[in-house]
Order: sequence, then structure tokens, then C-alpha cells
Amino acid sequence: MTGAVPGPDVLARARVLAAPDVEALVVRGLEGITGRPVERASGTVPDGPFVYVGGTLPDAPRAGRLVWFHSVNAGTDALLAAGPWPEGALLTRTVGRMGERIAQYVLGWMLAECQSVPEHTAQHARAVWQRLPSSLVAGGTAVVHGTGRIGSAVAALLRACSVRTVGVRRTPGDAPGFDRVVAAGSAQEAEELAAARWVVSTLPLTGATEGFFGAERFGALRGASFVNVGRGASVDLDALEAALRDGRVRRAVLDVLPEEPPGPEDRVWRLPRTVVTSHSAGITADEDVVTDFEACWEAVARGRVPALAVDTGRGY
Amino acid sequence: MTGAVPGPDVLARARVLAAPDVEALVVRGLEGITGRPVERASGTVPDGPFVYVGGTLPDAPRAGRLVWFHSVNAGTDALLAAGPWPEGALLTRTVGRMGERIAQYVLGWMLAECQSVPEHTAQHARAVWQRLPSSLVAGGTAVVHGTGRIGSAVAALLRACSVRTVGVRRTPGDAPGFDRVVAAGSAQEAEELAAARWVVSTLPLTGATEGFFGAERFGALRGASFVNVGRGASVDLDALEAALRDGRVRRAVLDVLPEEPPGPEDRVWRLPRTVVTSHSAGITADEDVVTDFEACWEAVARGRVPALAVDTGRGY
Repeated sequence: MTGAVPGPDVLARARVLAAPDVEALVVRGLEGITGRPVERASGTVPDGPFVYVGGTLPDAPRAGRLVWFHSVNAGTDALLAAGPWPEGALLTRTVGRMGERIAQYVLGWMLAECQSVPEHTAQHARAVWQRLPSSLVAGGTAVVHGTGRIGSAVAALLRACSVRTVGVRRTPGDAPGFDRVVAAGSAQEAEELAAARWVVSTLPLTGATEGFFGAERFGALRGASFVNVGRGASVDLDALEAALRDGRVRRAVLDVLPEEPPGPEDRVWRLPRTVVTSHSAGITADEDVVTDFEACWEAVARGRVPALAVDTGRGY
Repeated sequence: MTGAVPGPDVLARARVLAAPDVEALVVRGLEGITGRPVERASGTVPDGPFVYVGGTLPDAPRAGRLVWFHSVNAGTDALLAAGPWPEGALLTRTVGRMGERIAQYVLGWMLAECQSVPEHTAQHARAVWQRLPSSLVAGGTAVVHGTGRIGSAVAALLRACSVRTVGVRRTPGDAPGFDRVVAAGSAQEAEELAAARWVVSTLPLTGATEGFFGAERFGALRGASFVNVGRGASVDLDALEAALRDGRVRRAVLDVLPEEPPGPEDRVWRLPRTVVTSHSAGITADEDVVTDFEACWEAVARGRVPALAVDTGRGY
């Protein structure tokens, strides 16, 4: 369930606090939207009802009368895992152009593989002229786990390159941008995984997605490349490594890892045919925070649940 | 002008010759389409009218009664430069899925730059976890020189990624896939070059395009990245090098060079922020030759000029 939308009287007198690491540019934007000074959060418990904008919820505001928390991030798993969510507090998040950003990341790495971008770069460095094969992404199947905003944005862009897109979701149903949608764990999912040229995870981290990509799912693949732009803990690294070694996974591009940052001796650096990209896909821009907060503010002012509200039980 | 379309009586009795390097798979396809055995070209001048399928036109068939030459390549500049074109002979070419292939090459390298693909790959090799910036291709302007099949295919794909596309053509007019079309050498072209984030050349090599990208055009740029998937001789390498050194050209991706292959000491390997990709974009597949020959054959059999006919005077 989502928290309660603060009523007009509460919203009118709520203070607005920003975490110390929120950029000054964002703070000015928040002041313009809310029509009141934005205070920097300190170590003291705020008086009265307040709205908080930040990435994490420290102890002091947690102990006060938080009515609404706006996350500067899209993923709220770490925030929700840090302690019980203050009862009734609304939680909204920043998605920004994250769908578009992550979609371009995914397509960029798919095309990089098909166009031999790393191989051409290495060949150039050695002053070698030699034709390298390229292949079209067109006609291949991409299985995208997660059919929310990000998964749908990925699918829409891939379809523009004539890739067949299959969405995997928890429950049967439809989703925009996909040629087909199947339920996680169904025979249809296994069939699509076997046919897939790419498997892309956009899954958030919840109790249901931890270790989601394990021996069974990787075992169903027949040479797909795996791209993870969701959360690292959704992947069982032992199972991924085994699948890379026996070729069921052709290549892996991992933007996220179970433990971040990995140390220089971490096994992930030695996985075959794998690139780790340091959680760089879909970084939220300052302008995204202001734009998305404004959309939430407008909804709340009208007494509506913002489209960017997070179900704090489900986790997304 | 294009050559004459062979009449039905000539087509009915024409022999079909294939160059020695045409794949057996293609030869079988040609036999199926023409309903006659396909002979391998030898060093003797063929008797009677004949159709020739290959990449170059050797002396022996050149001296015979060639009625139609089908090129297994898209570019016919080398073929036409090798000697005067046999009078009245039809010339057709293979384009295949070249537009789609080259479009994915161009987008792949644009996204590779925006997503820091080479930098992530290098960082991974050093076991370094550090966020790298990425940017959206969306909103930037790509100026595409050449508004034919390939230029239009590039533009259509870039538009799917919300890139603004400007086509440059010899004469004013419209072209599919572009947000705007301007004439080469016009004030509008200069204005668009100054605003461009990318400049993509798909130009064929003709008398009018040799050295087309010289000091003047590169001097008009303000930090665009340059991608050449046309012909190498359309670029003045001195001018490109100067523009790379002073930053007017941000990066260059050169699939084609004035002299191919370049030796290991060639300057192109030392141009700053440049990758040379060994004429690998849009390699024609065997199936493309058969498919495009079939389309030409059907047109010729109906007495029509095939859409893939080349104007042997203009050169494309």
C-alpha cells in the first residue's frame, strides 16, 4: 500500500526539508514549486508535519512527523530496508528520464556487441585493418524481466530496431511496448528464454526477486547475452558464472552487483566475456528530481495519489 | 543515364555468368530465378548476349555483348572507374539490408560514445569500479549527408531515439526520414553543421563528392562527432586532422578511408579520438545478392527499369 496523501491543511503548513547532499540547484527548484523556504535537514527532530527530499531517511526525521518523503532515486529498496517505514507517510520517487536513459544503455550495449565495438577499438589501438563481422539486432528476441516504466521503455526502443520483445511479469497481464507478455515461472517464460538472443533484467530488489536469476533460469538459456540494469542481488553469481563458462550465457553486461563497490579482487572482474559498468546506467539528473517532485506536488495538491508513489509493502 | 533494359527476346536467350568469387549458394539462387544454368566466367569473351553477376568487370566479358551487369556490392564507384562503361549495358546493384545494417552501425557508435562503452570496457579490464557519465542521444541534431536509401535508413533509426535529423542533399527537395532537408553548400547547411552533435556521411564517391569534407565544412563544426560510412575519398584527411586537434570535431569513427587498407604506419591510426573500423559497416550478405537480383530480374522481365539500376553517368 502507498502512504496517505497529505490533506490540504497539512500540506499548507508542512515544512520542506532537503537532505544535506541535495544540490543547491534542486533546492531552489523545490522552493519555486512549494512556495516556501526549503530547510536543510540537521540532526534534530523537526517540529510539526514536514516533507523530506533525499536519498536516505536519517534517524532524526524518522522520529518526527514525516508526511511525505520524496526520493531523489528511482530504486527505494535500500531506503525501505533501513527500517520500518513511518506509518502513513507517503513515499514518492524520481524516475525522470530513467526509462529513456536505461533503454539507451541497453540498446547501446546490444549494438556494441553486434557491431564489435570493443573489438574494433582494440584493433584500432594495434593499427590493424581487418574486417570484423557485424550482425543486426533485428529479428532477435529480447526477454525483458520487469514490465514497469523502465522495462516498457527498453522494449519500446528495442522494437524500433525490429527486435522482438517479450516481457516477463509476476502475474499474467498486458504491458505496453511488448510483442508478448508472459508470467514469471511459466512454461512460456522457459520457452522464450530458450529462444532469446538477449535477456534484460530491469527488476527492482524485493523479497520476490532476490536470487531470481539462478541455476534454473540461466539453465534455460541457449546462448543469450544477459544485461542487468535492475538490482545486483537478483542474480546468483555462482549460477551466472557457470552459465558463462558453459556458453548458455554468451556475454554479460552487469551494471549492478550484489555488493557494490566490488573490491579489486572480486570474482566479477574475472567472469568470462563480462563487462561491469559501475552502476552508471540511468543516473538521475538534478533536473529529473525537480521535474518529478513537481508532478508529485501537483497531484498531492489535488488530493490524488501521485503516479510516482511507491507501494511501501511491495517495494516499487 | 541508366543502360537499356534488355528486351524480352534478348533476356530469353541471354546466358548468365557469375564471377569466380561469387558463392555457390548465390549461384544456385540465380539459377532458380533465371531458370537456366549459371556459367562461371572464364578468360574468354562470351558469345551472344549475357548477364554478368560479380563485383568487377574483367576484360573478357567487357569485350563481349554485355546486356546487364548486376553488382554484388552497393558501391559501384570502383567498377565504373575501371574503364568506360559498355554502351547501353544495364547496371544494377545490391543494396540488401545495407540501409538497416549501416543505420545500426551508426547508432551503435553514437550510443557507444554517449554510454562510454570503450571507457567502461577499459575500466573493467583494470578492475576499476567508478561511475562514468552517460548522455542521451535524444535532443541532439544529426546532420546526415546523403538522403538516399542509406541516409534515410540512418535518419529513421536515429529519430526513433529522439535525435533531430537533418539531411543534406545536392539539390533542394524533400527526403523521407528527416526532420529537415537542406542543400549542400547552402547557408542552412552551415547553420546546421554549427548546431550538430553528429555529422554522418553516407555519400557515394563521385566527382562531386571527392574532398567534400574539407577545411570549410569541418571549420563550420562546433564539437560534432563525425562518422563516415560513405567513401573515404570524400574526406580531406588534413582538414579532419586539424579539426580533431582543435576540437571542432569531437570524435571520429571512420569506416572508410581514402586508401584501403592503410599500412601500419598510416597517419589514420594516430588521429586523436578516432576509431577506424576496416570497412565493416553494412557488409553485403549472400542472401542480399540473391534477393536484390530477383527484384531486378522481375522488373526487367516486365520491361521496367529496376529500382536498383545505377545511373552510370552520375555514379549511383
